Amino acid sequence: MQIVPVILSGGMGARLWPLSRRARPKQFLALTEDESLIVATTRRVTNPAVFARPVFVCNDEHRFMVAEQLRDAGLVPCDILLEPEARNTAAAIAAAAAHVETTYGEDAVMLVLPSDHLIRDPAKFLAAVDIASKAAIAGRIVTFGIQADSPETGYGYIESGAAAKGLDGVRDIIRFTEKPDIKTATRFVETGRHFWNGGIFAMSAKTALQAFDAAAPGMVAVAQRAIAESKRDLDFIRLDAAAYAEFPIESFDRLVMEGSTLGAVVPVDMGWSDIGSWDAIWRALPQDADGNACVGDVVLSDSRNCLVHAEHGLATLVGVEGLVVVATDDCVLVMDRNVSQDLRGVVDDLH
Amino acid sequence: MQIVPVILSGGMGARLWPLSRRARPKQFLALTEDESLIVATTRRVTNPAVFARPVFVCNDEHRFMVAEQLRDAGLVPCDILLEPEARNTAAAIAAAAAHVETTYGEDAVMLVLPSDHLIRDPAKFLAAVDIASKAAIAGRIVTFGIQADSPETGYGYIESGAAAKGLDGVRDIIRFTEKPDIKTATRFVETGRHFWNGGIFAMSAKTALQAFDAAAPGMVAVAQRAIAESKRDLDFIRLDAAAYAEFPIESFDRLVMEGSTLGAVVPVDMGWSDIGSWDAIWRALPQDADGNACVGDVVLSDSRNCLVHAEHGLATLVGVEGLVVVATDDCVLVMDRNVSQDLRGVVDDLH
Repeated sequence: MQIVPVILSGGMGARLWPLSRRARPKQFLALTEDESLIVATTRRVTNPAVFARPVFVCNDEHRFMVAEQLRDAGLVPCDILLEPEARNTAAAIAAAAAHVETTYGEDAVMLVLPSDHLIRDPAKFLAAVDIASKAAIAGRIVTFGIQADSPETGYGYIESGAAAKGLDGVRDIIRFTEKPDIKTATRFVETGRHFWNGGIFAMSAKTALQAFDAAAPGMVAVAQRAIAESKRDLDFIRLDAAAYAEFPIESFDRLVMEGSTLGAVVPVDMGWSDIGSWDAIWRALPQDADGNACVGDVVLSDSRNCLVHAEHGLATLVGVEGLVVVATDDCVLVMDRNVSQDLRGVVDDLH
Repeated sequence: MQIVPVILSGGMGARLWPLSRRARPKQFLALTEDESLIVATTRRVTNPAVFARPVFVCNDEHRFMVAEQLRDAGLVPCDILLEPEARNTAAAIAAAAAHVETTYGEDAVMLVLPSDHLIRDPAKFLAAVDIASKAAIAGRIVTFGIQADSPETGYGYIESGAAAKGLDGVRDIIRFTEKPDIKTATRFVETGRHFWNGGIFAMSAKTALQAFDAAAPGMVAVAQRAIAESKRDLDFIRLDAAAYAEFPIESFDRLVMEGSTLGAVVPVDMGWSDIGSWDAIWRALPQDADGNACVGDVVLSDSRNCLVHAEHGLATLVGVEGLVVVATDDCVLVMDRNVSQDLRGVVDDLH
């Protein structure tokens, strides 16, 4: 039985301004590789021996960009579900679960993937998918636990428990902690039992729908209606707006995972990055002997540990250290690399 | 008798790259005021009760820019001498002296001015011109001594001696020191007897020509030939190339001033800056409460003591300190403000 990839493309990626904009969020950018994050994400799940054609849940505003990037990369056919409005990940995954149930039957296993993350070791990713899908068939809701190698305070953490009964490579979940303070995060990293929640989930359509209904009674009927009343529009499937508006606005983690007894975690060390900041891109890119990572037309003099992304014109750095410099055709960002996480507030007005 | 301003416009201003380029050197830029440095320099010497029409000595490549900026500013008529090639300031001043001698007679007083310096207190400048012109009439070669308020190592220093006999506000010169090391420069500033050489000189045409001939025998004949054989070309006076090629390639300071017994200095504190680096521009511009000086479309967050010059697009700085950020339509410079002086080597290839 094939696994159905469900790729979520709802994010707006304000933290990578000025490269990411409302009209061109992070998943559509080629940041560390030759192709965009959404294309790279899709390409990892194309082996037809393992995967069915992918299902995308996508913001209406970006539908042509999704379709065009996938077509250009030869990654068709696929199903593109359009959100009538953004209602967070629980709504998107519930609609996808109803679509998978209708198309492949309730036993089909879904693999939910963010469209804007980096995975540098696809072999380890695929090995984890294999482990996770077996647990999904056994009725579990499986999350990928990323080896936590630094005390990040912007991530969600999963505390793992005992090995899951009868499931190799899978552990039970003790609890979730969202965005801990630095002291707590440091302790988490030291225990070795805590993993970052990478937002990757495996579960059968049936398990998903039951879990949604347990968390929010009536939600499955809403999801099934969003699919049953959907309209074909060119290459897209427009989810029913009236039904979609009834979904709770909540993340899948918060609505389903945190309260579920079916949760399980597959620990995996696959070179993952959420590419959630310019600092993360600096870490993901190859660096020269002075720790500089450069994209585009760049001249450096006596400068160290900088990320320079020159999309427009020539960027010259002289005698500086630890900076992010991003030049586009209409603006320049110069930032201390260590404050990358705080960019959102500065540029909310500048999109 | 009117004083004849001689304004030198030969500089290429590589230290203010990327704003200054070969095709648009520093003197043609409006860096701290609404008008360019050459226009501001000329405007300071327009009072017809004091000054004759100005004489420019200008690189051929920039002749239309000079003419256009002066015409746009209403600063015509003027005489624009075109150098057939750049041969440093001794050649430019010798040719100007021969031109002034021919036009106004040998007793006419010349006031030699760099075209690319800033003077924030024009009243003090004009008072010094008055003092200097009297000393020039008395046969002295007068240089303006800028109050040295920091141990700059990139400048020439003038050590002043006793008050010049019969000349109020003028002192004799003991010696010149070009670009001292930091220890020497610090000592100079402490003595109170040392001044920066601002490259402003007053002398009669006769005194100048005699001093040139004493320093380099035959030089006056070369200068007179460069003028006698010059050609009118539209608004310009093209100096004779064959004669001009015979001039020594040397600065006026080195060739004439340093060896002359006629030298005298007029100390003046007139808010002078050579605007020779981005750091100097930061000092010359008004700063906000955090020490930032901004030109153009700039957004700052948690940033201090920066100079931002956004000629093209929006510049955003986040969490940085002591930087120079210059954005033009085809490049971006990001530099530690304290290394401004070293820019030349970096960008020699980038003009």
